[in-house]
This record gives sequence, C-alpha cells and structure tokens, in this order.
Amino acid sequence: MDRLTANMHYLFNPNSVAVIGASDNMSKLGFHVMKSLTNGKFPGKIIPINPGSNKVMGINAYPSIKDYNGHIDQAIVVLPAKLVPNIFQECVDKGIKSIVLITAGFREIDDPAGANLHEKTADIVNRAGIPVIGPNTFGMINLNGDLNASFTPEFSNLRKGNICLVSQSGGISHLLAFMAMEFNVGFSKIIGLGNRLNVDFDRMINYLMTDPDTKVIALYIEGIDDVRKLIETARKNRGQKPIIAYKTGKGKVGNQASMSHTGSMAGRHELYKSAFNQAGILNIDNTETLLDTAKAMSLCSLPEGPSMAVLSGQAGPSMAACDLLESEGLKIDGFTRNTQEKINDLLPPLALRTNPVDMGPAWYDSSAMQEIIRAVMDDENVSGILLLMMFASANVDVLKGVRDILVKWAQQKPVISCILSPPGIWDEEINELEKVRAIVNYPTPERAAMAMVNLWRYKRIKETMKLN
Amino acid sequence: MDRLTANMHYLFNPNSVAVIGASDNMSKLGFHVMKSLTNGKFPGKIIPINPGSNKVMGINAYPSIKDYNGHIDQAIVVLPAKLVPNIFQECVDKGIKSIVLITAGFREIDDPAGANLHEKTADIVNRAGIPVIGPNTFGMINLNGDLNASFTPEFSNLRKGNICLVSQSGGISHLLAFMAMEFNVGFSKIIGLGNRLNVDFDRMINYLMTDPDTKVIALYIEGIDDVRKLIETARKNRGQKPIIAYKTGKGKVGNQASMSHTGSMAGRHELYKSAFNQAGILNIDNTETLLDTAKAMSLCSLPEGPSMAVLSGQAGPSMAACDLLESEGLKIDGFTRNTQEKINDLLPPLALRTNPVDMGPAWYDSSAMQEIIRAVMDDENVSGILLLMMFASANVDVLKGVRDILVKWAQQKPVISCILSPPGIWDEEINELEKVRAIVNYPTPERAAMAMVNLWRYKRIKETMKLN
Repeated sequence: MDRLTANMHYLFNPNSVAVIGASDNMSKLGFHVMKSLTNGKFPGKIIPINPGSNKVMGINAYPSIKDYNGHIDQAIVVLPAKLVPNIFQECVDKGIKSIVLITAGFREIDDPAGANLHEKTADIVNRAGIPVIGPNTFGMINLNGDLNASFTPEFSNLRKGNICLVSQSGGISHLLAFMAMEFNVGFSKIIGLGNRLNVDFDRMINYLMTDPDTKVIALYIEGIDDVRKLIETARKNRGQKPIIAYKTGKGKVGNQASMSHTGSMAGRHELYKSAFNQAGILNIDNTETLLDTAKAMSLCSLPEGPSMAVLSGQAGPSMAACDLLESEGLKIDGFTRNTQEKINDLLPPLALRTNPVDMGPAWYDSSAMQEIIRAVMDDENVSGILLLMMFASANVDVLKGVRDILVKWAQQKPVISCILSPPGIWDEEINELEKVRAIVNYPTPERAAMAMVNLWRYKRIKETMKLN
Repeated sequence: MDRLTANMHYLFNPNSVAVIGASDNMSKLGFHVMKSLTNGKFPGKIIPINPGSNKVMGINAYPSIKDYNGHIDQAIVVLPAKLVPNIFQECVDKGIKSIVLITAGFREIDDPAGANLHEKTADIVNRAGIPVIGPNTFGMINLNGDLNASFTPEFSNLRKGNICLVSQSGGISHLLAFMAMEFNVGFSKIIGLGNRLNVDFDRMINYLMTDPDTKVIALYIEGIDDVRKLIETARKNRGQKPIIAYKTGKGKVGNQASMSHTGSMAGRHELYKSAFNQAGILNIDNTETLLDTAKAMSLCSLPEGPSMAVLSGQAGPSMAACDLLESEGLKIDGFTRNTQEKINDLLPPLALRTNPVDMGPAWYDSSAMQEIIRAVMDDENVSGILLLMMFASANVDVLKGVRDILVKWAQQKPVISCILSPPGIWDEEINELEKVRAIVNYPTPERAAMAMVNLWRYKRIKETMKLN
C-alpha cells in the first residue's frame, strides 16, 4: 500500500486537527469551520492557527503549525489560494497526514495561473503522500467519528447511518443533507471532493469498500478526468457494496458549466451511462431519486424476484404505484391460491381483493389488516411489498394495529411504504415505525415505487456481474 | 340553465347543512364529518340527523330531516348504501339543493346489486335536479366558504388559494393536501368526485370556469365513462383557465383496479394523453409534478418565451436544473451584451459568469447579488428566472440582501426558486419570501426546473389553442 493510500485513514479519523485560518470573525469561513468542529463535538484535539490571536473560540491558537509542539494528523485550510503552496510545505515538514483544502481559486478559474497553482500544490503533497480533499470544497463530515471538517455546522445535525455520499458539488451535498434531515436518512460520511487535487472518485471508492461504517456509496458526478479509472475501480469491487450515481452535464450548457465549476469536462452523457452500467454502477437521474434509492439500499434487503404485492388503504395511490412498477418492468402478479383465499375471507367484496389489494374496507379492523399483510409476506410468489396509506383522524388507529406485524417482519422481504398523515399530526408515530425498521417510508407512492424499482435493478446488476 | 346546473352553486355555498348519520361515536364517519364542519368553522347552520340522539356534539339533532322545520340547502350522507334511496327521496321532498354522498357500496362493488342501487339512486336526484358529489368519496372542501364537507377535519388546515383539485381518489386528494400543507400551496376547493352519480369532470369544469375563487384546475383521473364530454368541455373553455391532469391506469393492472375502484375502465392511456393535449389540457405524470405545476400556475405569470436565466449560489444545482430545462426544450442562451458586462463587473472571474451564473463568489456581497438579479430581470432575452441557493449559517445574510429586489420584481417575469436551508433553521425566512410572492419555492432544483418547463408548455398550448 502506498503512503497516500495508507494516510486515507487519517482523512476521516484524525486525533488532532489544525484549522489554518481559524477565526472569531463570523464573516470568515475559518469561523464556521471552528464552529463545525466544536459544535460537532470532535473528540480529538483542535488547534486553531491564526497569527493574530492567542485564542480562537476560547481555544489556544498558534501563529503557525510550526509553533505548535504536538503532533497534528489533519489540517483544514481556508486561507487564500496564493498562500497554499507555502502552507502545504509547512504541513509536509510538520508530518501532517491529511488535508482538507476548502480554499477556491485553482484550476476552475478563468486565469491560467489557477492551473499552475494547482500543479504546484499537487506536487508538494503527492511527493509526501498526503491525501487532500479539495480544493474548492465545503469539506467533509465523518458522522461516526464526530468529525465535521466543513464550513457547515448544521451537517452535525444529520442522523448517523450507513450511506456515504461522495459529491463534486457543495450545493448538491447541502441539498441532499437537508433532505436527509427531513426524511430520516442517515449517513456515514458526506465528502465534497471539490477539484480533486489527488483524491478522486476512484481512490475514494477503494477506501470506502473497506470502510465498515459504509454500506451504500452514492456519487454525484459532474466531470471526471479519467473515467476509466472510476470504471475499473467499480468493476474490481463489483458486488461488494452498491454504488449509485447521479451524473449531470447532459446538455451543452451543463458541459460548459462543469468545466468552469470543477475544471473537468462533463463528457458525453450516454457513454457515461453505459459505462457505469457495465461497471455495476446504478444510474440515477435526479437528486430526489439519488437519496430515495440510497435510503432503500441502506435499510432494505434486495427483492429476490420482480413480483411485487401492492397493499393500500386507498385505491388511487396504488394505481399510481402500479403504473410506475409496470412501466419499469416489475410484476404485480396474482397471489397463491392460499393467500387469495385468506384475503377473500378477511375483506368484504367492496373493493379490489386481488393484487393490488385495496384494504380500505378494513380501515376499522386492524386485525384483518394485520392478517392480510401476514398472508402476503408469507406468499412465495411475492418478493417485495409496497404499503400505501394516507391517514387522517378518521383512521389513525390502524397504524397502531399494523405496527406489531411490521416490526416482527421488518425487511425479511423489502417493505417500502408511503404512509402519510397531515404534517405535524402523526409524524412522531410514523417516524417511530421507521426507527424500528418496520417500514422505509417515502413522501409519494411514485417515489416509494421507484425506490423498489431501483432495488430490483441493482439486484439484476449484481446477478449480471456475477456471471462476468 | 337546467336546475341541476343552477343548484351547483349550493354544493359549495350552502347556508345550512344536514349531516345524515351524525354521531358522537368516534368510530363512525358521521363523527368525523361533524368535526370537519365544526372545527372548520362553517358559518351556516349545522343540522345533525340521528334518530337516537337529541344532541350531537352539543348541537340540536333531529330524527330525520322531515322533523327539522327550517330550510336545508345541503345534505351530507354517511349512512349505509341500502338506506340511500329512501334518504334521497326525503331530500327531494324537503327541497334540499345539493348532496354529498360519502357512503360506498354502489356500482364499484363486485355485486350487481351495487349497480342497480346506483341507477335507482341517480334517478331520484336527476329528476329533482340535485347535484351529488359521490358516492364513495371523502367529500369535499370549499376553503373560501369555510365548508369542510368531508370526513377529514385536517383539510381545514389547508391554506386558502386559487387551485381547485378535482379528484377521483380520496387517497390522492389526501396525499396532495398533506403535501400542500408542507409546501405552502393554497387551494380554493378540493373535490372528491367519487363514483360520480351525476357530477362528473365535465360538469365540474364548467362550474369552475365561472368560479371566481379558482384560477387553476388540477384533475386526478382514473377512469371516465364519457371521455368525449370532458374533452369537449375543455375545448369549449380553452384558454380561460389552465387545466392540468394526472391520469393513472396506464398498465393492465391499473386498468383493472380502476374498474374496481371507480366503476369505470381506465381506457387506453396514450389515447387519453393525446386527446387531453388537443383539448388544451396539460398532461402531468405524477402526484408531485401535479402539485408543483399547479403551484407555479397559481402564483406565476407564464414565460413569454423559452429563454431562461439560471442564477445559483452553487454550480451543482444549476447543472441539474440546466440538464432538465435543455432536455425539455427550454433555452439557456447568452444574455445581452449590456447584462453580461454588468455581471462581469460584479463577479470576479472565479466562477461561471455567463448563463447559468454561479453567484457563489458573491455570497458575502448581497448588493452584488441584487445587482445581478436586477440586470437579468431587465434583460429582454430572458423570459423566466430560476434561482437556486442552498443556505447554511455561513451564508444566511444574503437572503435578507436579495429580499428587497425579489419583492419589488415579484413575478413580473416568472421567478421559480429552490432556496433551502437546514430544516427548522431558516424555514420562517424562506416562508416569508413565499408569502410576499417574492419567490415560488421548490424542494429540489429539478422540481423547480420542471415547474418552469410546465409553465412554458402551457404557454405553448394556449398559443396553439388560439389558432384553432
């Protein structure tokens, strides 16, 4: 293992972090980085570096890292670009093992001086084998290590989970983080690769394959310099952990924007998609579906086959879900005779009792609803279940009724739901069902159905990869 | 005007409402309907009908409507189906002008007795010219009249607005209502057509064209008996008020489910879509987009042309939006020379200054951001603006900075935004911007872009319809 690869560990697990450019001035990024580390309760040593202060946020500060006597594992750098080469040389001299370079102004700018600076800076750390996140990034957060090495203290509000987001955009990372806070999605890490001085997608994926905190790898990609490296890395690690990717830069404008934003061309979109597919990477086409799919993969098993049962409290949402499942190649077949007979005994002939089952007539009989769910779970023809129910005060009791059976059966087969109530009314009860893994919940029937479709797509990809 | 058409007014504006089957027992729908009317602060007279009680919820009750001496404009019926023909005859005898029939068990059930009952019941009210919402519906709500004639008291939490939802599914109506409560979308009415005894989509659209509270008509459709009637009605009223429609029942399973749920076949999906299009109805393909599009049409003007400006605080979200705009036929052209020069003066050459504009380098200079927005608003080449910004504590001040310019320019050209902060942190400030109509906000850049695409699509439809 080369030195840089060995040092990747210290990017996420440093014992001591120096903030080069730490500040008490709220208008400086160095203030927000200090706040992220302290509010995020980083358990290691924090070393503010600022030539003008003895203390920053009440913590002893030093004019430079040279003036600090102890060992430093990580430097977070927020000073202007032109100062970075000297700072990096100091980092090398100090034996620092990892760097988060938040500063912008390298190869993404119009001026060729940016590209020169990029080369020069990369050269210093490459020779020393120091991995760098950035430049031009918000930073990153490792939730399991309570390391919020970013300028966004609110990332520490995220729930801990097993999804790692590796992103080329700070905007998309923030968007997904905010969505995740609302939709009960937990992350292991969120990493803003920025302009990738020496840590690109391929290197990060290799690291994450061995990261015990990460089960699902979600990528947001704009432009890549060496797409073959990413593809080879994905292929080499195929079948181990799911990789899902949302790639923008489809059109003319996006391609041009990518060059300017990340210093890399977005490239021809269709070629990417087909290469990703062959490498076992699941293609996703918007931010919502990226998070929705990561959530399902994080919490559900994969369906063994394409046959789905759709159980709903009202017919409309199940029609919306069935349309989507069918158009994406999943099947809504009949149940076994045994299951169907049980359902016919439990439901009056007022609504649809075959798959999709309209459980509406059982709204006031939660034991009937429990029995229907149990029968469908047991059905050998069913590989996954969509459960769609809109609650209001007229029918909230049934939630409690189905709780036990859902908890007991949690995710033996994937159970994806769209269980909703008026906002602020039974949110707690629905959240509780998610917390005990009884359901994996989505805000619309179509998004629930699409999450199931993507679980099945990935199952197919996994099977195909085994044959190769 | 025939009697039934004249009586449509009383469906939404009754002075007195009888609840036939009113109850103090929480397990009865008659309890929840009473709660809807009373919690919803219905300003007219409420007359509970229950042969076993003198009072329901503290309001004087009567054994039957015959026993009440005053006039009754509307009956809401929640008693079992087999009792409905007699009740309807009593309604006719009493001179009641409109009925909401919540009860299920008519032509949607497996038993042919259901269809017979349907015919018999329809015959009674048709002869008397009484419009009926239902059977098999949650009811409806008229927010401007504070009439919550449904079994869902929480519908009264909805914001008042100018969108009318006409839906064949209670589940979808509840889903959209819950979403609307979270996303600041306001309704004039939500109407659950149910199995359409004598009030179908065409009749409702005719009524809504003259309803001063309704600006946008959103339809959720499963199956229609006479699609030509709907098409003719839409064509006849073309260009007056936008009609947008989400139709499910695409696949084999959905079609079958529709028969069972609504008593009508869903029919061939592609034929519907093309007929809708020709009638000037905008086709929508999921619940989220139905609400998102209705929101944009409710609050924005239509773009005069296809040229969009994309202004963002971070490049990633703008790439996601541009991909979607371009793939749907909108244009992200260059600005006029004058605009471009202004932007070049305002932004350093650190990021993309042509369209899409990455305003990132102006995060800490809200006057520069204001000036950029003003220049783009003034640009004759720009027909609509997408504004995409993810906020956290490091950059929240800019929100206040751009507020004035956005308020001043509100919707002279459509401004659609995705302005987000960590949940619960600056929600208030963002909500406030929506309330003063400075922005029309969406939770992802793709959803914001799709809303703009649909405004443009409808503009095209309107232009085409004028030529016919």
